[in-house]
Amino acid sequence: MVHRIGDIATALGGRAVGDIGLTVRGAAEPSGAGADDLALAMSPKYAEGLRAGKARAALLWDGADWEALGLRAAIFVARPRLAMAGLTRVFDPGPEIAPGVHPAAIVDPSAEIGAGAAIGPFVVIGRGVKIGPRARIASHVSIAEGALIGADALLLQGVRIGPNVRIGDRFVAQPGAAIGGDGFSFVTPEKSGVEEIRSTLGQREEIREQAWTRIHSLGSVRIGDDVEIGANATVDRGTIRDTQVGNGTKIDNLVQVAHNVIVGEHCLLCGQVGIAGSVRVGDRVVLAGQVGVNDNIVIGNDVIAGGGSKIFTNVPAGRVILGYPAIKMEGHVESYKGFRRLPRLMAQVAELQKAVSKLTKSD
Amino acid sequence: MVHRIGDIATALGGRAVGDIGLTVRGAAEPSGAGADDLALAMSPKYAEGLRAGKARAALLWDGADWEALGLRAAIFVARPRLAMAGLTRVFDPGPEIAPGVHPAAIVDPSAEIGAGAAIGPFVVIGRGVKIGPRARIASHVSIAEGALIGADALLLQGVRIGPNVRIGDRFVAQPGAAIGGDGFSFVTPEKSGVEEIRSTLGQREEIREQAWTRIHSLGSVRIGDDVEIGANATVDRGTIRDTQVGNGTKIDNLVQVAHNVIVGEHCLLCGQVGIAGSVRVGDRVVLAGQVGVNDNIVIGNDVIAGGGSKIFTNVPAGRVILGYPAIKMEGHVESYKGFRRLPRLMAQVAELQKAVSKLTKSD
Amino acid sequence: MVHRIGDIATALGGRAVGDIGLTVRGAAEPSGAGADDLALAMSPKYAEGLRAGKARAALLWDGADWEALGLRAAIFVARPRLAMAGLTRVFDPGPEIAPGVHPAAIVDPSAEIGAGAAIGPFVVIGRGVKIGPRARIASHVSIAEGALIGADALLLQGVRIGPNVRIGDRFVAQPGAAIGGDGFSFVTPEKSGVEEIRSTLGQREEIREQAWTRIHSLGSVRIGDDVEIGANATVDRGTIRDTQVGNGTKIDNLVQVAHNVIVGEHCLLCGQVGIAGSVRVGDRVVLAGQVGVNDNIVIGNDVIAGGGSKIFTNVPAGRVILGYPAIKMEGHVESYKGFRRLPRLMAQVAELQKAVSKLTKSD
Repeated sequence: MVHRIGDIATALGGRAVGDIGLTVRGAAEPSGAGADDLALAMSPKYAEGLRAGKARAALLWDGADWEALGLRAAIFVARPRLAMAGLTRVFDPGPEIAPGVHPAAIVDPSAEIGAGAAIGPFVVIGRGVKIGPRARIASHVSIAEGALIGADALLLQGVRIGPNVRIGDRFVAQPGAAIGGDGFSFVTPEKSGVEEIRSTLGQREEIREQAWTRIHSLGSVRIGDDVEIGANATVDRGTIRDTQVGNGTKIDNLVQVAHNVIVGEHCLLCGQVGIAGSVRVGDRVVLAGQVGVNDNIVIGNDVIAGGGSKIFTNVPAGRVILGYPAIKMEGHVESYKGFRRLPRLMAQVAELQKAVSKLTKSD
Repeated sequence: MVHRIGDIATALGGRAVGDIGLTVRGAAEPSGAGADDLALAMSPKYAEGLRAGKARAALLWDGADWEALGLRAAIFVARPRLAMAGLTRVFDPGPEIAPGVHPAAIVDPSAEIGAGAAIGPFVVIGRGVKIGPRARIASHVSIAEGALIGADALLLQGVRIGPNVRIGDRFVAQPGAAIGGDGFSFVTPEKSGVEEIRSTLGQREEIREQAWTRIHSLGSVRIGDDVEIGANATVDRGTIRDTQVGNGTKIDNLVQVAHNVIVGEHCLLCGQVGIAGSVRVGDRVVLAGQVGVNDNIVIGNDVIAGGGSKIFTNVPAGRVILGYPAIKMEGHVESYKGFRRLPRLMAQVAELQKAVSKLTKSD
Repeated sequence: MVHRIGDIATALGGRAVGDIGLTVRGAAEPSGAGADDLALAMSPKYAEGLRAGKARAALLWDGADWEALGLRAAIFVARPRLAMAGLTRVFDPGPEIAPGVHPAAIVDPSAEIGAGAAIGPFVVIGRGVKIGPRARIASHVSIAEGALIGADALLLQGVRIGPNVRIGDRFVAQPGAAIGGDGFSFVTPEKSGVEEIRSTLGQREEIREQAWTRIHSLGSVRIGDDVEIGANATVDRGTIRDTQVGNGTKIDNLVQVAHNVIVGEHCLLCGQVGIAGSVRVGDRVVLAGQVGVNDNIVIGNDVIAGGGSKIFTNVPAGRVILGYPAIKMEGHVESYKGFRRLPRLMAQVAELQKAVSKLTKSD
């Protein structure tokens, strides 16, 4: 598809200069751009790349001299990273899923499919499922009995939606995401070692040889509007009530959200984050890659946790944390400096001991 | 389905009071319970919720005055968490998989399917596979040649079972679990850097530019009775012998069990645990979320490892461990207190140095 | 299939002794070996096992007396671990995928399938896809529009290949691997808390209540020759340019490779490694299990990172690192010794304070 530079600038809320009627077909890094590409050169470091590439138009950094760069047209925007959102949306053709229901899909007669939906081959849609208008469902997806999915959903290949899962509008699920598996909840006949050490912090009176009995998941999963779930990520059903993910929250690949967890609105859960059972996460919380959250923790609004943090205690709203266990980022940075200097510190203490011993003797 | 309060109490080994003939259709948290729900109010904090909800019957905490709470019937049990197992089993309708073999499933003529099995659409079952009676196999599952699965299995959507995998009775696999992929085992023509630093703890004589050659997996996976495997979890085949998971062990979502690993009986491997190649895990071991185990480690019976622990050395039976690297939990807690106080400790040492230097001069 | 001992020795570049015409059908651990198995006894610790088992031929440790061990034939090799590669390849029958295109596969008429390919049931191959000769594609695989896959590929059950992904020869993908999902890239209207704390290391001026807008992925994924990707691992598409994985690199189960990442040649990324967006990884880098790499980091050639390391800063070529955050392995080991001794160190400092205070007073 062809886009005019002037139209793109308008769509991005930016300003076009030069030949605003010039058209482009795609976007590219400056050095690799062809004559039909809009080059993305949002900092001066790309100037050389622009000259090496063939782009005639570019998205430029503030203050760039587009004519001196040999361009025929240019676009300027206030916040380049934000412009990337609009720009990539314009050029994204989306996955190819043929309109209508593929003959090799199996849709239960009681299911309701919204107008304009596209459903790929080998999709299975269960009893009583309702899917909103314009849904795009790629091959091999399964949607179990009673699930509800809002308007404009995009479910990529092999996504699993469990029984009675309810999802809002504009939902995106990457390949292999599994929403609505059973919670991991087991119990022993008598108190287990895990229950014991939670109170004793490591001491055990007696080790019992016990087996685990399954607690079934009667709840399901409830997901708000504008949520995205990453490839092969997992969100489990609740035990009695639903596991919940709030509006606007984005979940990356291979993230685990356990049973009964409530995640607030507009959160980012980055790659391989793990949230154990019954945790409550506030709004606008950002958990960087590989963060882990112990079960039954409460994380306040606007918390940011650095990569690999392991959260064992409640976190007040607005706090920035890091570490294992996670503490205030500044505190962790200070303590970590000390960790690096520990060998020297130990040597200093040894010297002090000698000196003091000598002083004491001579005293 | 409808259940009498008296029958539920009997099933849970508990005691019913009031109108034991009253029937309920489901279980719910007290405040959201309807007239047909059994409210789950196993601690006094739910008293208010009970009054707000519409439940006429409840599972109550010990000593609760059921009549004062406005109920018509109540159930009391000795260990509420254990009662949850029985209760949720009673009310779980299970996934809807139509009896018999779906016409869109592909079952090799040589496969043996047990009596009463239910096999969903787009399932593929390979040559010589044997599946026990009453198995429930949801859509999109694949079971490769030579695999054996015991009685009463539940395989949810998209589960992958590799060649010659042998699994006991009452197996449960959540969506996307992949059992029997090839082990991750590669070798370089000459000694690799990894082999070298294992002995030198970081020193390298020479860096060789080598490529990796694949060691194929000739073993398979052997799984006991009463095992559950979580969504998108992976268990790899062994190199020569089988990778093994013992009776009663439960494995959570996104867990990795590598080639040649032997996991004992009645273990819990929580979300995102990773166990590297050839590790031996004893019986009743609990690894909390995101625990990692280095290859070739031996973990004794009844070990409990706290969340995020990374285990680099053998662990004796019964030990409770934490940290990176994981050590005895008490030791870690003490050392970690020191870590937090390191900035102060460094300041104290600096002051001591000044004082001692002054004393030495004046001496 | 039957193999002569002499032929196996030749294939492994080793030396056969005794009855080199003796044939075997498989390989086994010594104690469990049958009469038709080649026993793998590459260290003296297996001598007893050899006597317990029924093997008539064995792969032996250097200097072993094969006749005294009761064998009729034996093979000796220079580097036993390397011999395992050749040996297991010889005995691996590979997955059973019937030749040709299964009638229940859906292949777009515009797709080109190489000679000798085997494509299983419920496979979906999109518009313009090109697959090289002798490809083996197991059931439930999806390959989206425009993807290119080289010769001799092995794609196991349920693998997902996204649009325009380009892959070299001899590619192996384990069950559920998802290559070409959208990158996890979102932006807020104004500067986000995450952008702020990156410069301030934890300080925040103002907390804005913002929502995330999606940056679409216009790039795809480009993978070299001889690459293997593990079960349920994920490799995301790039934003503008392609995410890249170099020749000979092996990626284990549940690994996450984010958008724009460039991984060099002959790397090993072990189980559950996570690499955040726009990271560059050099050649022959080994990241052990559960290693995490912060976004926009550069890792030099031949770096080795120990299990669970979290990498927050660029790493020079050839370095061996460990820890959270990851530092030189020797430095970490020294600091960690100090961490273990911290309780004692604190006690020593407290004693010194007392002693010095006494000295100062008496001074």
